[in-house]
Amino acid sequence: MRGRGVLLDRVTQFVLARKGKEIRPTLVLLAARACGGGGDRALRAAALVELLHTATLVHDDVVDEAERRRGAFSINALWKNKVAVLFGDYLLSRGLLLALDHGDHDFLHLISDAVRRMSEGELLQIEKTRRLDIDQGTYYRIIADKTGSLIAACLACGAASAGADGETVARMKDAGESLGLAFQVRDDLFDYGGADVGKPLGLDLQDRKLTLPLIAALERATPSQRRDVIQTIRSRRRRAAAAPDILRFVQHHGGLEFARAAMEEHAAAAAAIIRELPPSDARDALIDLAEYIVARKS
Amino acid sequence: MRGRGVLLDRVTQFVLARKGKEIRPTLVLLAARACGGGGDRALRAAALVELLHTATLVHDDVVDEAERRRGAFSINALWKNKVAVLFGDYLLSRGLLLALDHGDHDFLHLISDAVRRMSEGELLQIEKTRRLDIDQGTYYRIIADKTGSLIAACLACGAASAGADGETVARMKDAGESLGLAFQVRDDLFDYGGADVGKPLGLDLQDRKLTLPLIAALERATPSQRRDVIQTIRSRRRRAAAAPDILRFVQHHGGLEFARAAMEEHAAAAAAIIRELPPSDARDALIDLAEYIVARKS
Repeated sequence: MRGRGVLLDRVTQFVLARKGKEIRPTLVLLAARACGGGGDRALRAAALVELLHTATLVHDDVVDEAERRRGAFSINALWKNKVAVLFGDYLLSRGLLLALDHGDHDFLHLISDAVRRMSEGELLQIEKTRRLDIDQGTYYRIIADKTGSLIAACLACGAASAGADGETVARMKDAGESLGLAFQVRDDLFDYGGADVGKPLGLDLQDRKLTLPLIAALERATPSQRRDVIQTIRSRRRRAAAAPDILRFVQHHGGLEFARAAMEEHAAAAAAIIRELPPSDARDALIDLAEYIVARKS
Repeated sequence: MRGRGVLLDRVTQFVLARKGKEIRPTLVLLAARACGGGGDRALRAAALVELLHTATLVHDDVVDEAERRRGAFSINALWKNKVAVLFGDYLLSRGLLLALDHGDHDFLHLISDAVRRMSEGELLQIEKTRRLDIDQGTYYRIIADKTGSLIAACLACGAASAGADGETVARMKDAGESLGLAFQVRDDLFDYGGADVGKPLGLDLQDRKLTLPLIAALERATPSQRRDVIQTIRSRRRRAAAAPDILRFVQHHGGLEFARAAMEEHAAAAAAIIRELPPSDARDALIDLAEYIVARKS
């Protein structure tokens, strides 16, 4: 086999070195075991999900113009946008080929649908961010697509790899969707404090991203308070200095408690569905993981 | 069905409005007919290839930091990189779902392999461009991957959609690969003049991309001439003013004739394979299209 080129090898090494918590492949493997499966098919599903997730992270570096991700410089900053786009496409194609070579068409369908929803969700977020026009319904539609869809695909692929029936696969997909909502609300809460590491406070706000804590606070405020906050966020100059004021506004109107309660509800909904599976260590570990997602500090 | 969001609709309209020559889907449909097929499967293969090609063009807008494509502003310039990346991913996922919903796993395999090769080829080109270290072997490896692979997939998918045997599909893939080389050499020759419309003269050179006309001329020049030209290209300041000198250098060493002869050889190799098919109007139209690709002015 001919060499693939020095650049491709270097980018691959770089991405491997900064690998994350691997929550998604873990979800696939536990779901497979909890549905009485495991083995090679489950491992392939886990590898496929991680390849796909890494591809979207790499593309996300372009999308967010993020300077950092997981503490290290993003591929984008080091090698520029063009390499990030191409490397993401490369990972995607390798995942597709892995699945096609083994006839895993069920995984492919679940994951392609997740990719469609992830791109739709991110595009909707960009549109709404520009207009600062976002309510709870729109927020949930965005996070269900951009985050829920792939976590849903993880649990569904795990179940499918175990040969579970269509009804069980659909139930596990629902569980994953709820778990994904909890995961994203947890992430959005970090922007208002409580993260040990990771992104600095108020970053979403500087990007004009309205998330659940602020949306809930805005929905409880008076129309004039609401207008003031939106106008502050609209102004780049005022926005930069206003983070502490906006945090106080969110706290005053109970936005953090509201978001925490919503997150716990989504996680509990996921756990309730997972509990429908026959008792097993894997099932319990899956429920523990759902609780970790809510309790995590990064 | 819920709305997909205003931004996604607007980007879709924009991309549809600037559609190109549609050479790739035409190749799929003609190959299908020439192999005794046609109908819905051929149309799906053609749609899949065009979706994929459009996705890579949209991603290419990020890759090339191109300000223009086909005379119109690129998505990149109008909506920025992040929308281009997400819209490319969206098109890709829609193509995958179209194929998976119809069980077209053979098309998917051919096309996923093309995506892998396209991203590998572009990454290799970036690596080599940075170093200005490129000979004919490397040039052909790059263009076979970045351009040949998708044209090969067009003819192979067309044949596969007609239910052709594995041997015929493989032969048509070879024909497409050669046709793709001819197509790319034609494109690279435009940079040295001869295009009616499209990219301005010397753009590849300003991007430090060494293509066949210049590579051939460099291989025929003396070591010191060679070093002079490379040093000129390496210097941004000298490069900008040196386009006429480099064009003369390429002409003097017969680089244009060399590239034209190579292009005609590749097109002839493609036509010879296509002629192995049973006589039909579609087969002859396919050969005409191969000749058009060489003769085209844009």
